[in-house]
Amino acid sequence: MHLGSMRRFGVLAALALAGAAYGAAAQDAPAAPAAAPAPAAAAPFPRSTPLGSGPWDYETQAGKIHVEVLARRLDRPWSLAQLPDGTMLVTERPGRLRAIRDGKLDPIAIAGLPPINPSGIGGLYDVVLDPDFAANRRIYFSYVKPAEDNHDHTTLAVARATWDGGMALADVEDIFVADAWYGAQPWPKRCCGQGPATGSWGGRILFGPDGKLYIASGDRNYGEMVQDPSNHFGKILRINPDGSVPADNPFVGKEGWKPEIWTSGHRNPLGLVAHPQTGELWSTEFGPRGGDELNRIEKGHNYGWIDVTQGQHYNNDPAKAVKGVAGMTDPVLAFGPPSLNPGNIAFYDGAAFPEWRGDLLLPSFTKGLLRIEFDQAGKPGATEELLGDLKQRLRDVRVGPAGEVYILTDETEGAILKVTRGG
Amino acid sequence: MHLGSMRRFGVLAALALAGAAYGAAAQDAPAAPAAAPAPAAAAPFPRSTPLGSGPWDYETQAGKIHVEVLARRLDRPWSLAQLPDGTMLVTERPGRLRAIRDGKLDPIAIAGLPPINPSGIGGLYDVVLDPDFAANRRIYFSYVKPAEDNHDHTTLAVARATWDGGMALADVEDIFVADAWYGAQPWPKRCCGQGPATGSWGGRILFGPDGKLYIASGDRNYGEMVQDPSNHFGKILRINPDGSVPADNPFVGKEGWKPEIWTSGHRNPLGLVAHPQTGELWSTEFGPRGGDELNRIEKGHNYGWIDVTQGQHYNNDPAKAVKGVAGMTDPVLAFGPPSLNPGNIAFYDGAAFPEWRGDLLLPSFTKGLLRIEFDQAGKPGATEELLGDLKQRLRDVRVGPAGEVYILTDETEGAILKVTRGG
Repeated sequence: MHLGSMRRFGVLAALALAGAAYGAAAQDAPAAPAAAPAPAAAAPFPRSTPLGSGPWDYETQAGKIHVEVLARRLDRPWSLAQLPDGTMLVTERPGRLRAIRDGKLDPIAIAGLPPINPSGIGGLYDVVLDPDFAANRRIYFSYVKPAEDNHDHTTLAVARATWDGGMALADVEDIFVADAWYGAQPWPKRCCGQGPATGSWGGRILFGPDGKLYIASGDRNYGEMVQDPSNHFGKILRINPDGSVPADNPFVGKEGWKPEIWTSGHRNPLGLVAHPQTGELWSTEFGPRGGDELNRIEKGHNYGWIDVTQGQHYNNDPAKAVKGVAGMTDPVLAFGPPSLNPGNIAFYDGAAFPEWRGDLLLPSFTKGLLRIEFDQAGKPGATEELLGDLKQRLRDVRVGPAGEVYILTDETEGAILKVTRGG
Repeated sequence: MHLGSMRRFGVLAALALAGAAYGAAAQDAPAAPAAAPAPAAAAPFPRSTPLGSGPWDYETQAGKIHVEVLARRLDRPWSLAQLPDGTMLVTERPGRLRAIRDGKLDPIAIAGLPPINPSGIGGLYDVVLDPDFAANRRIYFSYVKPAEDNHDHTTLAVARATWDGGMALADVEDIFVADAWYGAQPWPKRCCGQGPATGSWGGRILFGPDGKLYIASGDRNYGEMVQDPSNHFGKILRINPDGSVPADNPFVGKEGWKPEIWTSGHRNPLGLVAHPQTGELWSTEFGPRGGDELNRIEKGHNYGWIDVTQGQHYNNDPAKAVKGVAGMTDPVLAFGPPSLNPGNIAFYDGAAFPEWRGDLLLPSFTKGLLRIEFDQAGKPGATEELLGDLKQRLRDVRVGPAGEVYILTDETEGAILKVTRGG
């Protein structure tokens, strides 16, 4: 805890050297629109083309791969969870939870979800299984929760439920509601050309090897809140499965700090995974132009946003610092410009593609699926770009039990692609 | 009741003269596909173009009209209900219920809907208010209900609920589940080139001036069931608000007849309205090519499907009869080919367009909004086509309290258009 505190003070000192105070920059920020925000957040992304029927076969550096459509006509699928019996649960961001049994997408959305705000890039995000799912049938899902009295005022929440495999969830209850409420008009003036309050919720959740639930909470395009440890904006959080706070969290009992904080200084963390060999957490983060990141998530670290970024603020204000700031952890990799818009990630450990073992698979909106080689020491090497010709916005990646790879396309006519070894 | 019986026997006699028995035709029918049906039902409809931002002003036969977008980014909106306080409820066919308050679409779908099957052209259909809504806050909605043990096996159901204006429905319960279950594989062989079981549910519901709830139940593309009065395929039904059967229904107590039947012989009735002056019920019906209909719905009548139609069966089999069959009621108007694909209807009785009073407004998928003049005697006259240049598939039409007209576009990026008098 003391270490975290020093880090924070260290960076503040560094930032004092780095440039203008945000108070001045905020004067130049565009005023928040008075009307409901248009979904402008989607505008920077390339227009996708309709997905063909497939299958597709490719020669890659690791040999032939075969890509087929497992399911289609999903509305912006965001997350896939694999059940022990082979059933899959898939979230659709506008607010539906779907099941795939024996390779067939059930047309019926599973009923029982709470009210969800799907504005902008919000909605229903991740779904994960309880580590003891086979016995307790518990699932956890993250979503954008609206305030009862103002539906534009939202935060990130995590609920759990039991699912018997049928048409409805039971025992649905929020186990965590982030103290990151934001969005009611009028919006405050903000610096740096930040986007609307209907973006940057984060949303990935993950059970770590320690049995704790990690939650990636975004900055809501209100980055000024992120370096304040008394809220959940732009933090990766760690809780017990019942929502309580683990006693060994880094900032438990520290005055002015939310006890759920595991790491801070995040913008929009959209990927979160535990390395299958090392157990380390890794996260992708959507930054401003040129600031997309791959981060190794270490207990108590501060990843710098909004002060430190390798990206360009959208209004061209200079970042206070770019990297190498004392007390701040730099990304392992930074991407762009142009924006990569990274999705979730997977360190490949399957049987189907031995050449890929240890490599990171990183779906993106703009460059297809990146395969980033990692050496034994955990250092990234060469990158191979796959599936870019499909021109789909790729959101999630999962490795199946036989080493096959599932990829979700974040499209209105979204699909799940299945990648296997080619013949 | 005796009359209804005679009608049925009458038409059977006539049909014996009209041509081949269905048993022979069925031999030529294509086998049902083994896999889940693709949404081929949508294929015949024209591809729509994205809706511009508007507003649009037109010179029409009745003077200038002004058209603006009241709400957009609705996913295939299907029905609109107007509450006493100006709030609107809108169904989205994939299974969301939305509210518009003070002209603003709430981003939060109202929670609490039952499991709904949105396959093909199924989903959440109509929503209507209890005649005593102001006091009891009850709403009724129709939807495609899946069987618990086979989600492709579905029927049309009507549920009621109370809605306090907040984020969730309460007291949700089915008050009517049609005895029209169908869709489990393998499908039976059917005649006439009929489409998949994921079409033709009907779905309109309406409180008549008599305080009874009318339900338009489609033939499920299994028209062979329609002339059988022991089921609810292809019937317009009449129930009390609690789901019980009114004692004055035409076939109550008649052996072999479902007591809920008000009229029979329907294919896919997609519009249902009570005339504001006469109280008569009118219905639009989607027929095969050239068989779209406008029907005056009269107690106990039989409208002929599948035996009598002015349309062409999709496999070019001849219809058994076209019109004028004893015991069968012909449509007031028949449309096409090409298919009009009629939506819901409204007899205009508003203040904004005195020239339109008594005329029928009929939104369509292929010709925009038809305004069909009706004379004092209830005879249709000339037709004016409006809004066709927008190239939207129009689904529902409602007249607002000031005589303004609301039109729903049945599009993935659907909208509500508001039509007022031009300046």
